Amino acid sequence: MTSAGPPRDHGDPGDAPTVPPPLTEPAPARRPSAAEEARTIAASTNTGTLATLTADGDPWASFVTYGLLEGAPVLCVSNLAEHGRNLATDPRASIAITAPSTDADPLASGRVTLAGHVEAPVGAERDAAREAHLGAVAAAKYYLDYSDFTLWVLRVDRVRWVGGYGRMDSATGRDYTAAQPDPVAPRAAGAIAHLNADHADSLAAMARALGGYPDTESAVCTGADRYGLDLRLDTPRGMAYTRVGYPRPIDSIDELRSAAVELVKMARGG
Amino acid sequence: MTSAGPPRDHGDPGDAPTVPPPLTEPAPARRPSAAEEARTIAASTNTGTLATLTADGDPWASFVTYGLLEGAPVLCVSNLAEHGRNLATDPRASIAITAPSTDADPLASGRVTLAGHVEAPVGAERDAAREAHLGAVAAAKYYLDYSDFTLWVLRVDRVRWVGGYGRMDSATGRDYTAAQPDPVAPRAAGAIAHLNADHADSLAAMARALGGYPDTESAVCTGADRYGLDLRLDTPRGMAYTRVGYPRPIDSIDELRSAAVELVKMARGG
Repeated sequence: MTSAGPPRDHGDPGDAPTVPPPLTEPAPARRPSAAEEARTIAASTNTGTLATLTADGDPWASFVTYGLLEGAPVLCVSNLAEHGRNLATDPRASIAITAPSTDADPLASGRVTLAGHVEAPVGAERDAAREAHLGAVAAAKYYLDYSDFTLWVLRVDRVRWVGGYGRMDSATGRDYTAAQPDPVAPRAAGAIAHLNADHADSLAAMARALGGYPDTESAVCTGADRYGLDLRLDTPRGMAYTRVGYPRPIDSIDELRSAAVELVKMARGG
Repeated sequence: MTSAGPPRDHGDPGDAPTVPPPLTEPAPARRPSAAEEARTIAASTNTGTLATLTADGDPWASFVTYGLLEGAPVLCVSNLAEHGRNLATDPRASIAITAPSTDADPLASGRVTLAGHVEAPVGAERDAAREAHLGAVAAAKYYLDYSDFTLWVLRVDRVRWVGGYGRMDSATGRDYTAAQPDPVAPRAAGAIAHLNADHADSLAAMARALGGYPDTESAVCTGADRYGLDLRLDTPRGMAYTRVGYPRPIDSIDELRSAAVELVKMARGG
């Protein structure tokens, strides 16, 4: 590849590996919506990067901490700082949040942009916003009540979610606010490790019977959420990805074990 | 503290701990400039958050990867993505970069905003920019040459550096470009651990003789760079911070040991 070579389009995979298609129709497997994915990412950390407008209308990126009030980021910024001055002059803002990841490829990580405008909360909402920020950013107790700091609630008008390569979608602010963060995914690492260490045969059986890949040789669980399991599998035709859905959504990590048992029964015709 | 209480100003530390002042004049100890700190942070990672302008002039924050070409961030973004469309329409942009940190308090981490405008490099600069991006973001080889991806170089007009609580400064784009990233700080973790584990007495001697705190009871090295060591120390009056400077700047981590030995000699009147 040289910069002088012919342009290549996304439609031409070039030397990228090809993924074998399913051989049978996969069983239905609900995925979290973009709004749910966005709520989950927003709930996964307490830092992000804010984009605001300078007095000249230039875009200004700056590191911020936040808490969440029904999904709305609550900022506490100094009016002496550039982003604080910007927000006081023009309330338009967006925040980019990246989920913590151990993947060596940064573009494989999930991230979200929440765009809208900030408002200074008043009355009971101010109290709730204050608690939301303090609950997420303990160190804020040292400066939150200084007079040059302002609490801002970001009213989310629109959302762009990127789940990694090729997984992305938009959501309205309304859908984002109505959604709930996933109760399972952020706590699933231990359960996933257990599935992979002790139940590899069951995962392969799920991929064969439910995932559309009857030629699965082995399978690894790469994620678990309220609706199902993500699987990566090997076939004689190459590596592929699929997903298997529980019979019913679950509400907590405590239900993951029984949901996985039900999946095994379904996979084995039970 | 309640939200109904009287406002407190930065000038009123309230219940924040007070820091005892030096008792003697500290020896001169050069610090990295804001431009140098910014170059060091920019060189410490390959991910940041870009702020661009939408068609409506709204600020848009989005996750990006980058390489560096003489300090200028080199982006490779899809024209199909929102930030790609934004840059193609309005070249104004800034990027916020946060140094990797293990500190539990996110606001203690170093970060920088580089603001300016993007240009599509041409000719030899395009080749250099391409190599700079690929050198920093290995996965870019899979998409960099697709026709919907554009290489952009961010021409840095101004810089805002925040080194943590109370350490911050601005720099011009010219000073930023002329500065060099620190050759020592990013590789100093092992040497700092060794100093703290095996040479605590020497660090305390430095703090007493050179750092302005003759009543130092113990000292810990919290950072090392091309110009000197940062120390945190305990005195009967409370915890304080100081800095000791090598006789001459050093150019590599290999010189840190001999520089530290020289500091010990200076501290012990050698």
